[in-house]
Amino acid sequence: MPLTNAQLHLVSRPAPEAVVENFNLVEVPVPELKDGQVLVRHHFMSLDPYMRGRMNDAKSYATPQPLNAVMQGGTAGEVVASKHPAYQVGDKVVGFGGWQDYSVVDAGVPGTMRKVDTTHIPLSAYLGAVGMPGVTAWYGLIKIIQPKAGQTVVVSAASGAVGSAVGQLAKARGCRVVGIAGGAEKCKYVVDELGFDACVDYKAQADAKALYNALKEATPDGVDGCFENVGGPVFEAVLSRMNAFGRVALCGMISGYDGEPIPLKNPQLLLTQRLMIEGFIVSEHMAVWPEALKELGTMVATGKLKYRESVAQGLAAAPEAFLGLLKGRNFGKQIVKLV
Amino acid sequence: MPLTNAQLHLVSRPAPEAVVENFNLVEVPVPELKDGQVLVRHHFMSLDPYMRGRMNDAKSYATPQPLNAVMQGGTAGEVVASKHPAYQVGDKVVGFGGWQDYSVVDAGVPGTMRKVDTTHIPLSAYLGAVGMPGVTAWYGLIKIIQPKAGQTVVVSAASGAVGSAVGQLAKARGCRVVGIAGGAEKCKYVVDELGFDACVDYKAQADAKALYNALKEATPDGVDGCFENVGGPVFEAVLSRMNAFGRVALCGMISGYDGEPIPLKNPQLLLTQRLMIEGFIVSEHMAVWPEALKELGTMVATGKLKYRESVAQGLAAAPEAFLGLLKGRNFGKQIVKLV
Repeated sequence: MPLTNAQLHLVSRPAPEAVVENFNLVEVPVPELKDGQVLVRHHFMSLDPYMRGRMNDAKSYATPQPLNAVMQGGTAGEVVASKHPAYQVGDKVVGFGGWQDYSVVDAGVPGTMRKVDTTHIPLSAYLGAVGMPGVTAWYGLIKIIQPKAGQTVVVSAASGAVGSAVGQLAKARGCRVVGIAGGAEKCKYVVDELGFDACVDYKAQADAKALYNALKEATPDGVDGCFENVGGPVFEAVLSRMNAFGRVALCGMISGYDGEPIPLKNPQLLLTQRLMIEGFIVSEHMAVWPEALKELGTMVATGKLKYRESVAQGLAAAPEAFLGLLKGRNFGKQIVKLV
Repeated sequence: MPLTNAQLHLVSRPAPEAVVENFNLVEVPVPELKDGQVLVRHHFMSLDPYMRGRMNDAKSYATPQPLNAVMQGGTAGEVVASKHPAYQVGDKVVGFGGWQDYSVVDAGVPGTMRKVDTTHIPLSAYLGAVGMPGVTAWYGLIKIIQPKAGQTVVVSAASGAVGSAVGQLAKARGCRVVGIAGGAEKCKYVVDELGFDACVDYKAQADAKALYNALKEATPDGVDGCFENVGGPVFEAVLSRMNAFGRVALCGMISGYDGEPIPLKNPQLLLTQRLMIEGFIVSEHMAVWPEALKELGTMVATGKLKYRESVAQGLAAAPEAFLGLLKGRNFGKQIVKLV
C-alpha cells in the first residue's frame, strides 16, 4: 500500500488580503520512485515573506505560484527511499520540496537538493541562518551596503531570520547596529541576546514623528547602511536619518504586500543625501552562496551567530503561521515542524 | 574712478514658490585687486536647476545660498585685469563668479578658475556641454547607468543641457535612446537634431496612463537605464517600464523643487524589478572631470555633440529666466549673456 502524502495547495488568490481560505489540504498517494529519484520525508518547512508575492497573479520577480498545486517553498528532511547512487536512506537534505510531508526529487538535476551535515548545525538552521535567509542577510549587507567599521547600520524586522543575521554580521565587522522590531520582547531579545547596540520598538511609537525621534536617539551619528525588510513608515524613518552616501539594501517591503503599495513620501532624500538603493533577490546571486554559507555555518557552529525559531506544529498549521508571519506575529525564523 | 559692478542678491527665501521678488539688483564698486587676484568680466552666466535647492534654508546637499549676498553660480568670461602671473588680460576663463557682471578671483586657490580654449569650442559651451552639465550627464550615464550597446536608455528633460548630452553619449555607445520633453517642438528637436530614437511629449499626455502608454510605445523592449532629471509623474512612468536589474541615475527632481516633495507611488518596483537607484552630485566626483571633459570637448569640437542654448540678455533678466527654467520654459541650456 503506498504512503499517503498530505499537501497544501493554493486554491485561490488574495483579494487583496491573504487568508487561510486561499489554501486547501489534500491527501494523495506518494508515487513510486523512478530511477534517479529520491523520496524525502520533510522534517521542517520554511515559511518566508517572499511567498506572499508569489500568491498574486501579477508581475513580480517570481513566477506566480500556480493554483491547485502544492505551495512551493524550502524544506529540510531525510531521505527515506533512494534510486539515486549519491543519496542513501538516512541522509539529511535541504531542498525546495514545498508545503507537503514528502517530496519526490529528481536528484540528478543540479540545484534541486543538497546533503547537509547536522553534526554541529541543527537541521532546521539550514532553512534559516545557514540557508536562504542567512545568505540574503549576507548578500545585502556585504555586497550592497558594504559596511565599514564604525559606521551605523539599521535593520528592520530585526528579530527575524534575515534581520538577526544582518545585525550579527555587521557587529562582527565593527559597526554600530540598530534594530527595528515590533514589541518590547523582540527588542529586548535583539539587544540582550543578539548583541545589537540598540533596538527601536516601532509599535511603541505613537506616530511617524515619535518613530523618527526614537530612531534619532538610537542613531546619534546618523545611518550609513539600511537593510530594509519592511518598507512603509519604518523605511521612511530610516531614510530620514541617512547620512550622505548612505546605502540601502532593499530586501523586502512586507508592509505593502497585502493591498496597495505604500508610497515613499520623500524620494527627494535619495538625491539630497546622494543615497544608493538596490533591490535584490538572493536566488539571483548564486555565486556568493558558497562564501556566504561558509561564514554563516562557521558562525552558527561556534555560537557566534544566534537565531531563534517560531515553530508551528504540523502541516495543517502552515497557513495560519504564514499569515502570522506577514503580520509580524512570529518571533524569529518561522518554520513548520512536520516530524 | 572705480568700475561699477551690478549684482543680483538673494534677499528672501521661497515660501514655498521661488519668485522674482526673492532677488534684488544692486550696484557696488569693483574693489582694487590685491596681489594674486584677477578681475574677470563675465560674458555668460549659467542658470541651473540645482540653484533652486540652495535658495532654501533647509538640509540639502549644498549649503544654503546666504541672504543678501551675490547668488552663486558658474560663469564664463575674460580676464580684464590681473595681478597673478598665470593669467593675462584677454584670457578666457570659466569659474564660479556668481550672478554679477564682474568677479574678483583669488587665482592661486585651486579649483576657482581655469583657462579655456575657444578656438574650436564657443566660450558659452563651457557652461553647458563642456562644463558642469556635460560632466553631470557623463558621470550619471557612464558611472551609474553603465549602459551596454543594445540597451534602452531614457532621459527626462531631454532637450536640456544635461539631457541632450546624456542621449548623445548613450547613442555613441550603441543604445536605443528615448527622451522625455515638454512640447512638440522640443521633442522634434531631440529626435531630428540630436538623433534620439524617440521622444515622448509629456505635456501632450492627458494623464498618467496616457504617459505610460506613450512611453511603452517608445520603449518596446522596456528600459534598462534611466537618467532622471525631473521626478514626479514622469519618473513614475519610467520606473514602471524598467526591466529587471535596471539602473537609475538620479540627477534632479525639479518637479518637486517648489513646495512639498512629490511621493513615489510605487516603491515596490525597486524590489520587484531589482532596480538600483543612485543620487549624485557631479561636484563630488571631481576625479572624473578630466576624462569626461576630454570626451565632451572632442565631441563638441567635431560636431558630434550638439546642444542648444536659451539666452537671456543682461543681468536683470536672470531672475525671470531662472524661474522659467524651473518651469521648463527654456529650450536647451539656459544662460544669461552679459556682454
